[in-house]
Amino acid sequence: MSWLDEVNWDANGLVPVIAQEYDTGKVLMFAWMNRQALELTEQTKQAVYWSRSRNKLWRKGEESGHVQHVHEIRLDCDEDVVLISVEQVGGIACHTGRHNCFFKKLERAEWKIDQPVIKNPDDIYKL
Amino acid sequence: MSWLDEVNWDANGLVPVIAQEYDTGKVLMFAWMNRQALELTEQTKQAVYWSRSRNKLWRKGEESGHVQHVHEIRLDCDEDVVLISVEQVGGIACHTGRHNCFFKKLERAEWKIDQPVIKNPDDIYKL
Repeated sequence: MSWLDEVNWDANGLVPVIAQEYDTGKVLMFAWMNRQALELTEQTKQAVYWSRSRNKLWRKGEESGHVQHVHEIRLDCDEDVVLISVEQVGGIACHTGRHNCFFKKLERAEWKIDQPVIKNPDDIYKL
Repeated sequence: MSWLDEVNWDANGLVPVIAQEYDTGKVLMFAWMNRQALELTEQTKQAVYWSRSRNKLWRKGEESGHVQHVHEIRLDCDEDVVLISVEQVGGIACHTGRHNCFFKKLERAEWKIDQPVIKNPDDIYKL
């Protein structure tokens, strides 16, 4: 049996994935993988997700160059969540040009942005 | 508009939640919240999830005593994923009696357990 068979894929054949920065421990982003994406991630040591909005494989960084080098792949107790430890090229994981996607912090019943835009998205995505 | 209205709840009225240990940065677990769970989490400063298997609110630690004191609540760029920073009482987040749920590491195409059981689950759940 393949290690891929041990993953409890959901009804859509997907598994939620948390990407954590390997040196800082910061949670960078959350996304989904299907079987092929997880297999490619392991084979290439670069994060490949499944885009639910575009309904196709999403090689992280394919447009931006902000690829993620994968150091470690983990599975949780119920075998239905994946945690990957990655090196974030460019130091930008979020499509808004920020370091990570969790830049809204709840403060006195309001979501406050507390992380700067490192690079303008218009300069990241030039297609 | 309430801060709760800004969350993009999924078709089931849920949002995925990542719980990260505030002092170590370790990702402890992944679960779901509905609107009431997130509201209670904010109000009580203790993590309350929505159990999809039991279809009811799940006050983390209600049986085990392993509650999570919430230091911070964050929302991602798409407003459909929540990240909470917590203090894990008892140092055990996983129902298997381990520190966290991500104790299976992929090594040479096999999932290897690399974290010890801190406390026997039979001694944690005595109902």
